[in-house]
Amino acid sequence: MAKFMDVHQNMVGITAEELRAAHMADLAIEGDESVHFEQAWADPEAGVVYCLSEAPSREAVQRIHERTGHPADEIHPVPLIV
Amino acid sequence: MAKFMDVHQNMVGITAEELRAAHMADLAIEGDESVHFEQAWADPEAGVVYCLSEAPSREAVQRIHERTGHPADEIHPVPLIV
Repeated sequence: MAKFMDVHQNMVGITAEELRAAHMADLAIEGDESVHFEQAWADPEAGVVYCLSEAPSREAVQRIHERTGHPADEIHPVPLIV
Repeated sequence: MAKFMDVHQNMVGITAEELRAAHMADLAIEGDESVHFEQAWADPEAGVVYCLSEAPSREAVQRIHERTGHPADEIHPVPLIV
């Protein structure tokens, strides 16, 4: 298992409700890929969402995000944390 | 006070030691701008560092990062968190 930070662009105007709904959709099926989405942060003005997860691979993260309709634009393994 | 996610590019090969040293340098002077750097995540292969803070403004975050020699490439207010 490793930590990943993924980035979603083009989310201008995302609301707290929408962010929560997207996160809950991910949580509902994340177990299928042994992923856990820990937290997400959104800048609605710039339309960027950052999403921190623990997962077996980048591909596993993306499969969940794709199934819930919001594929990530970037997925970075982040082995260094301070 | 607000939450910010800042992004540093061109950090290919950053080590755990270097990330820690950069974070400690920020922590040592963050009080001058009423900023608190909470956590940082690095992808040494892609050379990207994500840094989460609480601060009075984007400019305050950048002033600390500039003084410690690693200005951010992007600083996003992230008012939505889940």
